[in-house]
Amino acid sequence: VAGSVTDSKVIECVANFSEGRDAEIVAAIEGAVRSVAGVRILRSEMDTDHNRSVITFAGPPDAVAESALRGIGIAVERIDLRKHAGVHPRMGAADVVPFVPLEGATLADCVAIARRTGQEVWERFNVPVYFYEAAALSPDRRLLENCRRGGFETSRIAPDVGGPALHPSAGACIIGARKLLIAFNVNLKTDDVRVAREIARKIRASSGGMPFVKALGLSLAGRGLVQVSMNLTDFEQTPLHVVFDAVVREAAARGVGIAGSEIIGLIPKKALEDAAAHYLQCENFESGLVLENRLAED
Amino acid sequence: VAGSVTDSKVIECVANFSEGRDAEIVAAIEGAVRSVAGVRILRSEMDTDHNRSVITFAGPPDAVAESALRGIGIAVERIDLRKHAGVHPRMGAADVVPFVPLEGATLADCVAIARRTGQEVWERFNVPVYFYEAAALSPDRRLLENCRRGGFETSRIAPDVGGPALHPSAGACIIGARKLLIAFNVNLKTDDVRVAREIARKIRASSGGMPFVKALGLSLAGRGLVQVSMNLTDFEQTPLHVVFDAVVREAAARGVGIAGSEIIGLIPKKALEDAAAHYLQCENFESGLVLENRLAED
Repeated sequence: VAGSVTDSKVIECVANFSEGRDAEIVAAIEGAVRSVAGVRILRSEMDTDHNRSVITFAGPPDAVAESALRGIGIAVERIDLRKHAGVHPRMGAADVVPFVPLEGATLADCVAIARRTGQEVWERFNVPVYFYEAAALSPDRRLLENCRRGGFETSRIAPDVGGPALHPSAGACIIGARKLLIAFNVNLKTDDVRVAREIARKIRASSGGMPFVKALGLSLAGRGLVQVSMNLTDFEQTPLHVVFDAVVREAAARGVGIAGSEIIGLIPKKALEDAAAHYLQCENFESGLVLENRLAED
Repeated sequence: VAGSVTDSKVIECVANFSEGRDAEIVAAIEGAVRSVAGVRILRSEMDTDHNRSVITFAGPPDAVAESALRGIGIAVERIDLRKHAGVHPRMGAADVVPFVPLEGATLADCVAIARRTGQEVWERFNVPVYFYEAAALSPDRRLLENCRRGGFETSRIAPDVGGPALHPSAGACIIGARKLLIAFNVNLKTDDVRVAREIARKIRASSGGMPFVKALGLSLAGRGLVQVSMNLTDFEQTPLHVVFDAVVREAAARGVGIAGSEIIGLIPKKALEDAAAHYLQCENFESGLVLENRLAED
């Protein structure tokens, strides 16, 4: 069928702005993002405590880059970090802007878009730029924390583009490229948070568990349950169902049952297709067997 | 994203033609089907024993109806049932033509398309038409078998449109509307076909099992396995994962394990999403959480 989303590349941008209290400013940024043809806002969240908002939008790469630039432009104009308070660490009015490959696009496409967008941010708005994750220019800048150290007030890290001084009111912008991540929580039928913490430690990459898994054990006091809260940073390497089964197994080994799970944000269809094929023990599964995928093929 | 397949209604047509040996004639029918803008052939199969071919295509309702008419036109012109031999029962050169609602379309839309197409088949090609399943004009014609009784050579059933005599070489065309069906097989780790037959009898609607499930027990001699071969005629009423779990349970009760499963033809994404959400015990799942679904929204 002509004109489907898979006819060409689609990328996502998950832009973080240092304004989570003034809805009028956030709406102005959304309006700028939406003003580019072909770009769709998938989600928009404001956090009052963090005084921060996250706008997730998607479309063809060039259009998404232009949307990001227009959104950053409004943020630079309307947000003054000298008057900004909030518990979240931040470097800029438009603080962190990662590009994520979706259909037909690669991480390399997003690195290219990130670099070009960074150059434009400096040229259009006089705001210096750091590149992080896959777009980093040096290994030590891959981690967001390393770009953000010291924050707007006390940073001593030289920008990758522009500078060396930060923009007086808008600081700097940290632009990157990364793969899609899945945020997924599993709730356990116990009120003992140690069980969730033990399981989190057992499965997460940082303590020798599964690669591409970040996990925390939390208490859900209101429900009398505990939760293993996870980010899967590469679900094609470590699939969702593998992580879920590991949590189920570790919980069972501790005599604890599963209350349920929840998906935070959006989940790519491939993670669900792979999970369904796994649990249904399907021998011949491939994405082309899904009617809607076939319809969307060129 | 503009122009995605969900911007408007999409239906499918699974057209059965009484020619499965002459590839040139089948290619001519395919060409006619493909000649309508917006229509895509999803699958095309020829069966030599049955001397029959099935072309599955999809697109906007009016375009799919026109494709069906053009395909039927070629079949009427090129296939002479007086010279046709094959084991499959048949009434016409273009034998059975069901329309199936896909994205955004309803069964009622397909009934309307079926009725209009039937009228056109008579007017354009002088071929009388029977309506079956949801498009039937009377309850006794809902079943395909009832429309086809006697076959091309000896049928005494008056057509719903045109006739009363059948077309001398092209017979009649049986046009209908039905929901999408899922063809799904589960292979069992035993060579005792009685196990597969018992399970099929236990789960299928016709012997008091689950509604909307047709099932047969078969031997897969080549693999030393047996198979429960199923059609799910309404997977939203009786989901794929419910049927799979029932087969697993019945097999386990007989001390038999699962070797694997297979999807025949195409499967709608909703069946996989629902299965994934079920096995992952997801509390908050809805289709809008799937990134690609969100991208395709208006």
